[in-house]
Amino acid sequence: MAKEFVNEIADINNNFSQWYTDVVLKTDMVDYGPVKGTMVIKPYGYAIWENIQNYLNCQFRNRGVQNAYFPMFIPESYLKREAEHVEGFAPEVAVVTHAGGEKLTENLIVRPTSETIICEMFAKWFKSYRVLPMKLNQWCNVVRWEKTTRPFLRTSEFLWQEGHTVYPDEAGADNDAKEMLEEYKHFMQWFLAIPTLTGQKTEKEKFAGAVKTYGLEAIMKDGKCLQAGTSHYLGQNFAKASGIKFLNKNEKLEYGYSSSWGVSTRLIGALVMTHGDERGLRMPPHVAPIQVVIIPIASHKDGVLDKCKEIEKSLSIKGNRRVKLDDSNNTPGWKFNEYEMKGVPLRLEIGPRDIENGVATAVRRDTHEKFTVNLNNVVDEVVKVLEDIQNNMYQQAEQNMKNAIIETDDYKTMVEKVNQGKVALSYHCGEKECEEQIKNETTIKTRVIHSMDSNHKCIYCNKPSKYRVYFGKQY
Amino acid sequence: MAKEFVNEIADINNNFSQWYTDVVLKTDMVDYGPVKGTMVIKPYGYAIWENIQNYLNCQFRNRGVQNAYFPMFIPESYLKREAEHVEGFAPEVAVVTHAGGEKLTENLIVRPTSETIICEMFAKWFKSYRVLPMKLNQWCNVVRWEKTTRPFLRTSEFLWQEGHTVYPDEAGADNDAKEMLEEYKHFMQWFLAIPTLTGQKTEKEKFAGAVKTYGLEAIMKDGKCLQAGTSHYLGQNFAKASGIKFLNKNEKLEYGYSSSWGVSTRLIGALVMTHGDERGLRMPPHVAPIQVVIIPIASHKDGVLDKCKEIEKSLSIKGNRRVKLDDSNNTPGWKFNEYEMKGVPLRLEIGPRDIENGVATAVRRDTHEKFTVNLNNVVDEVVKVLEDIQNNMYQQAEQNMKNAIIETDDYKTMVEKVNQGKVALSYHCGEKECEEQIKNETTIKTRVIHSMDSNHKCIYCNKPSKYRVYFGKQY
Repeated sequence: MAKEFVNEIADINNNFSQWYTDVVLKTDMVDYGPVKGTMVIKPYGYAIWENIQNYLNCQFRNRGVQNAYFPMFIPESYLKREAEHVEGFAPEVAVVTHAGGEKLTENLIVRPTSETIICEMFAKWFKSYRVLPMKLNQWCNVVRWEKTTRPFLRTSEFLWQEGHTVYPDEAGADNDAKEMLEEYKHFMQWFLAIPTLTGQKTEKEKFAGAVKTYGLEAIMKDGKCLQAGTSHYLGQNFAKASGIKFLNKNEKLEYGYSSSWGVSTRLIGALVMTHGDERGLRMPPHVAPIQVVIIPIASHKDGVLDKCKEIEKSLSIKGNRRVKLDDSNNTPGWKFNEYEMKGVPLRLEIGPRDIENGVATAVRRDTHEKFTVNLNNVVDEVVKVLEDIQNNMYQQAEQNMKNAIIETDDYKTMVEKVNQGKVALSYHCGEKECEEQIKNETTIKTRVIHSMDSNHKCIYCNKPSKYRVYFGKQY
Repeated sequence: MAKEFVNEIADINNNFSQWYTDVVLKTDMVDYGPVKGTMVIKPYGYAIWENIQNYLNCQFRNRGVQNAYFPMFIPESYLKREAEHVEGFAPEVAVVTHAGGEKLTENLIVRPTSETIICEMFAKWFKSYRVLPMKLNQWCNVVRWEKTTRPFLRTSEFLWQEGHTVYPDEAGADNDAKEMLEEYKHFMQWFLAIPTLTGQKTEKEKFAGAVKTYGLEAIMKDGKCLQAGTSHYLGQNFAKASGIKFLNKNEKLEYGYSSSWGVSTRLIGALVMTHGDERGLRMPPHVAPIQVVIIPIASHKDGVLDKCKEIEKSLSIKGNRRVKLDDSNNTPGWKFNEYEMKGVPLRLEIGPRDIENGVATAVRRDTHEKFTVNLNNVVDEVVKVLEDIQNNMYQQAEQNMKNAIIETDDYKTMVEKVNQGKVALSYHCGEKECEEQIKNETTIKTRVIHSMDSNHKCIYCNKPSKYRVYFGKQY
């Protein structure tokens, strides 16, 4: 019966890509769906998403954002109203041509994002500046037909939240987009323990239909960048396309100014690739589906299971932590390996000798440190250790990010270093064509603008620089 | 400036159907989407759905059900695997034929329900009885292309939860389906204050692909029935179609037994039509987005707004209730009407004289009763009143349900009474054809079986009865 636990994940240092696939599949976070490019989010992965939802819902509520739900099917003609938008999204939409046994008179596209349909409704609802700003958010599925897909990172269907606002003025909507960038940054840092580079995207890399796009870039352990979220100032582009007009304070009709912002289930991929190690996942306590696992040692011995249950209850109820007591028939060794692979931040082992001594043996997933916690004070001690793990994981990730960034003014060095797994901070002229050429030569793209700077030379074309920008490879 | 508040909803007694449409649109619960048959769930409606989700998620968790997410696109061939299932759903599916700019090699249907795709994954995952029973749930959108649609009640796209289980034995899966029926009944009663008739559906009315379907029927104020939820025992039908095989205790390969169960956003329609009155919505406190509204009287007077804010804070934080303080410029009279229409269970008015007397003037939405609550004891008193409102609303609804049900053995009487807005309890032979004829003649359908009974005669064909069953018109 007692099989050896086999971790069976690829070497993180030699084959990061296979390591990722192994980890997400073998920890029961996700599986491939039957249709190419789709994924099934299994309970362990979905619990992470639910924790993210709960956190962000609080943050949204505090900003006066209300949740709503808009239809998934968008008339094909809507997509075409905003010229850049249709160009950006038309190639990757899924199209419903038949429904209810009949050919439709107008094809429906499955939302790749909802600006067009939400702005259509906004145009119907808002007549006066008095109800502005309006801030709505929805949690939903979206579809973007991608050629190359990977679970969480890039899938035909994924889950996300998309916030949409209308303001009576430019400053309001642009500030909203900037503030959301900061909200996301704080959420990533505090909740997911993931540091990010934030800033405006270049003209070339902005969202199709936006005036400005602000982005959050996280750097994965292999040095590649992952766009963790975006926030767009849309100006009057969609307002004009949909006819969002309102009576301003001077009783004049004016178009609204809008913003939109979103994060998706790819954040789960970011968690894996920011914190994971050779043994599998490492979950930051704040977002971890299981924060503490309790493993009974010699559980057949009198009092062991009872004590484990008592501690589970204390930590759950008094401590308000997510605790799992594993009293299955698997060996303790098997369980150690399993929950290590699943990245549970803290393990408590409780056996007869521990009980005699009034302690539990604790093992941290982040440092592998082994120590004892006093059972009389278990809630306080565990809560404190979990916070310490959270902080430590953020600091480790921040150090990794710093180590990944290099500064260079030399194009060849930039390309070489980025290909070796670095992110380069370099000057650029800001010309779309120049950026395009770099991408075509190297697949390297700009990530976010670091700072405006016209005192240097473009790393590629040698013309005067416009800004300093991060260059990297991307997920 | 001070416009009169105009309620503008149709007379509930003369035109129930228009009353419903007016109420759901004018209370900002919902709007029509641009594509025929779709709806936009606005914040006030969506908040109800979120409260339902929170409640049911607790209930599911306590039953060991885990949330997950399965892809929305199902290969067309999957639908065809279960003969009855395809017959039931094929006419109303939406079909994706193109994606990513190309014609697909196999059409994809947008899930009308997910048995086929979830069972496909179950077949891949389960190899041994040791991991059974498996109980998963997903919250998602589904699409059923309907000819006649109404917001919440019947829409092309709607939101729901669908639970899916696999058990190693028939009794396990059938019990699961029955227990979920009871769970739903309790939830409807305790949370939505809606009484239901529960029981098995007839062969004719069962879910396409099920062995047995259990249903919950709520009776609306006009006497029509609304199927509020269903729970299916699927036997081995889907297991055989998808190949869900597992090694049983005797090491023999066996097909699994499955169940599925769900409730949808039509519950919001049920809430409206169970509790609403001539002034609009009436929200049971447990599910109400706003449980208490505080309206300042003479808010410009010193101390009034401060006191209102203090009470709001007490009720929110100490009382853990959902409270709104409306300090807008609208007149108190306007606000009274607005929150009555929105069905807020309890209104507190606080003005200078109230503050002097240490009280707030309270008005219940369910009884229109006006009374005072002591501000020193406001949390306890309000919590108690809200519970009383919840109970009272359930009792009113239960009385309405009782009044709606008549017992008759005479076909003509049955048809006449049902057409007048009653639900009839009558004997039936259990033959599909007989039931079909009644439906074709009258549009009246069986709702749920009351009890097995072979000692009487069928109300229609006069053959020996099989059971006693509820007949009614339906939403």
